Amino acid sequence: MNRLMKLNIENRKWDHISLALDDYSQGPIDTWLSCVVLVHQAVADLSFDDIDTSVYFLGYKLKFPLIISGMTGGFSKAYELNKSLAEIAYRYGIGIGVGSQRAMLINSDTIHTYKIVREIAHGIPVIANIGIAQLIELGPNIAEKVVEAIEADALAIHLNMLQELVQLEGDRVFKGYIDAIRNVVERVKVPVIVKEVGHGISYELAKKLAEIGIQIIDVAGMGGTNWVKIELARYKDTKNIVMEASKEFITWGIPTGASIVEVRSALRTGIVIASGGIRNGIDIAKSIALGADICGMAQPFLKAVMNNTAEMFIEKIIYQLKMAMMLTSSKDINALKNVPIVITGRLAEWICSRKLSLRNSHAYISCCSCRNLSGENEFY
Amino acid sequence: MNRLMKLNIENRKWDHISLALDDYSQGPIDTWLSCVVLVHQAVADLSFDDIDTSVYFLGYKLKFPLIISGMTGGFSKAYELNKSLAEIAYRYGIGIGVGSQRAMLINSDTIHTYKIVREIAHGIPVIANIGIAQLIELGPNIAEKVVEAIEADALAIHLNMLQELVQLEGDRVFKGYIDAIRNVVERVKVPVIVKEVGHGISYELAKKLAEIGIQIIDVAGMGGTNWVKIELARYKDTKNIVMEASKEFITWGIPTGASIVEVRSALRTGIVIASGGIRNGIDIAKSIALGADICGMAQPFLKAVMNNTAEMFIEKIIYQLKMAMMLTSSKDINALKNVPIVITGRLAEWICSRKLSLRNSHAYISCCSCRNLSGENEFY
Amino acid sequence: MNRLMKLNIENRKWDHISLALDDYSQGPIDTWLSCVVLVHQAVADLSFDDIDTSVYFLGYKLKFPLIISGMTGGFSKAYELNKSLAEIAYRYGIGIGVGSQRAMLINSDTIHTYKIVREIAHGIPVIANIGIAQLIELGPNIAEKVVEAIEADALAIHLNMLQELVQLEGDRVFKGYIDAIRNVVERVKVPVIVKEVGHGISYELAKKLAEIGIQIIDVAGMGGTNWVKIELARYKDTKNIVMEASKEFITWGIPTGASIVEVRSALRTGIVIASGGIRNGIDIAKSIALGADICGMAQPFLKAVMNNTAEMFIEKIIYQLKMAMMLTSSKDINALKNVPIVITGRLAEWICSRKLSLRNSHAYISCCSCRNLSGENEFY
Amino acid sequence: MNRLMKLNIENRKWDHISLALDDYSQGPIDTWLSCVVLVHQAVADLSFDDIDTSVYFLGYKLKFPLIISGMTGGFSKAYELNKSLAEIAYRYGIGIGVGSQRAMLINSDTIHTYKIVREIAHGIPVIANIGIAQLIELGPNIAEKVVEAIEADALAIHLNMLQELVQLEGDRVFKGYIDAIRNVVERVKVPVIVKEVGHGISYELAKKLAEIGIQIIDVAGMGGTNWVKIELARYKDTKNIVMEASKEFITWGIPTGASIVEVRSALRTGIVIASGGIRNGIDIAKSIALGADICGMAQPFLKAVMNNTAEMFIEKIIYQLKMAMMLTSSKDINALKNVPIVITGRLAEWICSRKLSLRNSHAYISCCSCRNLSGENEFY
Ligand SMILES: Cc1cc2nc3c(=O)[nH]c(=O)nc-3n(C[C@H](O)[C@H](O)[C@H](O)COP(=O)(O)O)c2cc1C
Ligand SMILES: Cc1cc2nc3c(=O)[nH]c(=O)nc-3n(C[C@H](O)[C@H](O)[C@H](O)COP(=O)(O)O)c2cc1C
Ligand SMILES: Cc1cc2nc3c(=O)[nH]c(=O)nc-3n(C[C@H](O)[C@H](O)[C@H](O)COP(=O)(O)O)c2cc1C
Ligand SMILES: Cc1cc2nc3c(=O)[nH]c(=O)nc-3n(C[C@H](O)[C@H](O)[C@H](O)COP(=O)(O)O)c2cc1C
Repeated sequence: MNRLMKLNIENRKWDHISLALDDYSQGPIDTWLSCVVLVHQAVADLSFDDIDTSVYFLGYKLKFPLIISGMTGGFSKAYELNKSLAEIAYRYGIGIGVGSQRAMLINSDTIHTYKIVREIAHGIPVIANIGIAQLIELGPNIAEKVVEAIEADALAIHLNMLQELVQLEGDRVFKGYIDAIRNVVERVKVPVIVKEVGHGISYELAKKLAEIGIQIIDVAGMGGTNWVKIELARYKDTKNIVMEASKEFITWGIPTGASIVEVRSALRTGIVIASGGIRNGIDIAKSIALGADICGMAQPFLKAVMNNTAEMFIEKIIYQLKMAMMLTSSKDINALKNVPIVITGRLAEWICSRKLSLRNSHAYISCCSCRNLSGENEFY
Repeated sequence: MNRLMKLNIENRKWDHISLALDDYSQGPIDTWLSCVVLVHQAVADLSFDDIDTSVYFLGYKLKFPLIISGMTGGFSKAYELNKSLAEIAYRYGIGIGVGSQRAMLINSDTIHTYKIVREIAHGIPVIANIGIAQLIELGPNIAEKVVEAIEADALAIHLNMLQELVQLEGDRVFKGYIDAIRNVVERVKVPVIVKEVGHGISYELAKKLAEIGIQIIDVAGMGGTNWVKIELARYKDTKNIVMEASKEFITWGIPTGASIVEVRSALRTGIVIASGGIRNGIDIAKSIALGADICGMAQPFLKAVMNNTAEMFIEKIIYQLKMAMMLTSSKDINALKNVPIVITGRLAEWICSRKLSLRNSHAYISCCSCRNLSGENEFY
Repeated sequence: MNRLMKLNIENRKWDHISLALDDYSQGPIDTWLSCVVLVHQAVADLSFDDIDTSVYFLGYKLKFPLIISGMTGGFSKAYELNKSLAEIAYRYGIGIGVGSQRAMLINSDTIHTYKIVREIAHGIPVIANIGIAQLIELGPNIAEKVVEAIEADALAIHLNMLQELVQLEGDRVFKGYIDAIRNVVERVKVPVIVKEVGHGISYELAKKLAEIGIQIIDVAGMGGTNWVKIELARYKDTKNIVMEASKEFITWGIPTGASIVEVRSALRTGIVIASGGIRNGIDIAKSIALGADICGMAQPFLKAVMNNTAEMFIEKIIYQLKMAMMLTSSKDINALKNVPIVITGRLAEWICSRKLSLRNSHAYISCCSCRNLSGENEFY
Repeated sequence: MNRLMKLNIENRKWDHISLALDDYSQGPIDTWLSCVVLVHQAVADLSFDDIDTSVYFLGYKLKFPLIISGMTGGFSKAYELNKSLAEIAYRYGIGIGVGSQRAMLINSDTIHTYKIVREIAHGIPVIANIGIAQLIELGPNIAEKVVEAIEADALAIHLNMLQELVQLEGDRVFKGYIDAIRNVVERVKVPVIVKEVGHGISYELAKKLAEIGIQIIDVAGMGGTNWVKIELARYKDTKNIVMEASKEFITWGIPTGASIVEVRSALRTGIVIASGGIRNGIDIAKSIALGADICGMAQPFLKAVMNNTAEMFIEKIIYQLKMAMMLTSSKDINALKNVPIVITGRLAEWICSRKLSLRNSHAYISCCSCRNLSGENEFY
């Protein structure tokens, strides 16, 4: 790889990061978590300090049901970013993913920008990351390579078809995805996570993934960072058909709230990671009550780390999660999974239409056709 | 208690009052009583003067189904406030509660600021008030103490977990609530009322309270005075995690309209007090038609008393209640409990989702799953 | 009656008229006819000139299913107004009502201001008008008197309890209404119409009226002229409890769209007049497709007559009605009663909640519980 | 025909075109396609270049499921317009219709303005066009004439009753339509298409058309070009009853989304053309997933051709359609017909109310009464 190519990647990576920091990169649709009401319980029989927010994930005990979603690596400034993110994750006992390790495969000089995460993050899960396109392009053995490079506890394969389609020079061949994932599942020793990057996973896909042995899905739904917007912003002044066509795809995707239930319905005993627009502790509580096991956040951590407010930010979120747990009488995350919630509005309409099931045995929803849903479930 | 401590409490109490007077302290969610339509009946067969708005409550006959909710006591200016409130209550034959009697337990010099209520309020019910936290901290015998101090006809125990959580130095231990209440029920000779302070009581909690012998619940739901807002306003400039975390809890709670039905469904033969955002006589009529027995108001009476408009205010409300009764052909409050109403929008969605029952045998609601609800009830 | 009393009535009457002309007197709620969609039929097999808009009413054949609702009489300017209104009614072959004949009973000098209507309106129905309060105050024999005075074809008894309650010196005794109406029905030789003045008639009342022999009901629902607003405007600067209390009753009532179905459900073989906010020919078509037989309009005719645009106005309305009939393939008013309509939104919610029936065998409504409604009807 | 008459027609035609170009001529209601959500599938197993967007139509294989709806002909500038439109259609392998051939029947000098389309458009379907009124006025043999004149592959008969009613001098006789269409069907050798011009086709009419042998219906629903608005704009300053009456018909019609399902329900094995407000490739994908076979667009092509941006425009649309197909895993148009969609909001309400059936076996809709609809269908 020559210097120019490197600079090019470097520039794009930096573009992505600086554009993602801008508020414009978010929304415009919300996660639909606003359609979930956690029913206030005025009596808890709990002490704040007794509330147990820990969950087991990838063999570790996380202090909070939270991971920092994979974002960066592979260029100079990424080292500092990943270091800061890992420090936060380590300090608060939560999971962390690195960004796509494609750069590392092309240019091994950049390996340290990923490795720094594992070096700092003792005793917490670290997740490797690769795009499905690279897996197909470079073969399944790179899966092992990226995992080993950072001694990862799991490998996240990201699906970003829409992002590619919005790029003038993006991929246009999306074949063999399922086979490629199956290959990786069979080959790598760590669990494989499949994730989107902001448009959500459907029931149909989750079902297929479950069939090939995927036990962890990160929904990465619509409502937070919007890659269509970010890629459009990168076009700047150039006018072309791909860009013009893409503008109407700004609202394409499955809102995170819906995607949680879609995936949960298909992956009854697996792990569902809620991400895409998760922004505070109430969102975390709602996601888990709706069907998720843990949550992921990307952009907010990036922002917090850049602004040197990461501790403040995470402590706020933790306090909110505990408040929400207290006010729903949840002594631990398992209890939170079954607190009374009311599902309303568009999310209720979606769940009813799609005939999805709910894990939460105290989820209330006003749709006739699914009034017996929670009773019928064979969960756990 | 030294002078500084006293001043401190005094200041906080005054802060609360002056902040509560500000419009900002209200909402932002409404009570959802706007979802209740009282069906206009163009013929009444009644005289305005024959309309009987009286109800029996705590052994008294109230002229109107209304109480002034407990607000104040325990500091110098509270004496005048409570005196004015009691005069209004006495004059119009409605019930009245005092504010938390905690101050009186700490500093017995303040006892007269509460007692004045009983001194004025002959022949109407007076309600003592204590926080659940004080009951646990100081033991169940204080229950008798606060009741006796003002010769109260009932004791209201308030639950304010969220308010505590929003305060930097608020309680964080919320254990043994149910046991503490049970102890009080067994010990004090007057009826015990359990109330929230603005976030509502759920079906689940009402059920538990009914089991330990509580026969009167004051919903104090969301839609009126908002303690998260008030406590946040008290922070002024200081930035800290608790405050930042609390901001997103401004809309936490069960709207009064929903809470009335939640509690009524659990407490079939008990007394349901509707409060939290009750602002006029139409709200009172709707609350009763929806399942309440009487209503409570706090902030509007505070405001009216401060502005010397309390009589005007209460007469307006009474006139409105009577108009609403006339226009629904209700000769008395019992009739009002069964007038035709249509329940719409978000409240209908909530009631259907939560599979709640309606006392009103002429409540109409457009949700298929609950279309037979009123028919199935075993009320009364 | 002395001069001052006369002037007083005169002033109030004029106040009412001039305030009613102001846009402020309308709404704020709409008739809910916006929830009715007439399904477009691109083929009609009709000539515009063949469309038969005639209906039989009170023994006459109206050219259009329309009456000018009763508004005025009893003071000097009323003569001219009634004359102009009658000329329009006569010219276009529609029905016409006079305003309350109370003034005529008190002061027989004013009789000519009503009589002028009959004098002009040959061959079309003229409707006498009296308030229920006058019937009770002055005895049932005044019913015959007002009918005979103008040789009326029917007598409209108006119910206006809310309007009275909003007036400082309004009635407060509303007893014996049903008996009084029954007496009139038995005594007068012409059909008796019961009408509201803008807050609608409920199913419950319509049922009671049907039982005592009323076969014509004019819903006069919410959505057009709003008497709470008009009476409030008359208070000007004076502040008092009745006025303050009344402000929150501006939205009290049953929207015309809902009231049509309420009354039709109760009065299966009688005549339903849709009025209150009917403003154009599409409203007329929707009302009839929804369950009415004919429509009434008050304020728009008043305005048109005052502005000398009455012909233009009525021709516009007729053209619209015929357009709507053409575009729904309705060769006559009977056909219009059964054209495909879709009932949506709040009106659908109301009809479903209230378990009302629909006369129109092609009314489509998306509520499970009433999906078989039209099939079950025993209409006609 | 004298010079003045010619100029007159010419002027009206030009008026129509220039007014249609203005944004004001569109809407104000949308197509309700916004109520259709294509469920994002993050994995496709497809290459962009393998996506097959072709469909068979009128014996041809269209490269894309699209036609340029009939717009113009019969006056001087129409020649250039039709030439440009035909060039685009030819180049991209889509169908094309000419505008009403009435002018050509009146003045045979204008024939070349239509013929140019056939001359350019080799190997793609060309559709002749005549109004139902002309068919009746001039007799069924003109059907053959207009088809032969341009060697058309099909004849579109347009229904535009509402447009006529809005014109001061428009038709008022709309009799014998069904018979006239039956005559044409029996007589002409090419398939007959029945179309509206922007107000949609109902289930009732589609059923009747199916009975007389129509196998292709173009819904031309509400949501795009609005002829009531265009005709109103042509009135300029003149005030008259027809114009005043018409203003309230600006929202009359069946939105395209609803009309697609109406017609599809009636015409189970025929061809449904979705048009009226189709504006981009996502609209095309949604229309087909909702029940259409191909789509039509008029105004956008007119605009694009006038602005010399037709290629850019159509390439954008094609790219969007392919993106939508990729993101729903549709390898071809048949697959697109059965991709998971969620139907929400007003469109769901409409479909449920009207008890319509859905062709798409993966259409999800949250209405209890129609939850089994797709299962019950006997499609194909
Ligand atoms: C700057 C940035 C870079 C990202 N890079 C990657 C990546 O390399 N691999 C990946 O799987 N997801 C990547 N993502 C997507 C995130 O992991 C996450 O799924 C998405 O941003 C939604 O979460 P959010 O709304 O909390 O940001 C990136 C996100 C951001 C903001
Ligand atoms: C200034 C103020 C002080 C209050 N203090 C108490 C209190 O000491 N004890 C209590 O149970 N509730 C207290 N409340 C809550 C009220 O009793 C009531 O439940 C709540 O304000 C909702 O009613 P509202 O919307 O009508 O104000 C207080 C309310 C206000 C406005
Ligand atoms: C100026 C005015 C005077 C009215 N006076 C009477 C009346 O004397 N008797 C009566 O039955 N209704 C009276 N009405 C009510 C009308 O008959 C009608 O029911 C009501 O205005 C609703 O119709 P609208 O919305 O078309 O105005 C009056 C209405 C107006 C506008
Ligand atoms: C300028 C113009 C002229 C039209 N002329 C005709 C016509 O002659 N015959 C016809 O069937 N439809 C005609 N139409 C209607 C279109 O074929 C189409 O049904 C309608 O415009 C809705 O599609 P749109 O919203 O994509 O414009 C015309 C449309 C436009 C914009």
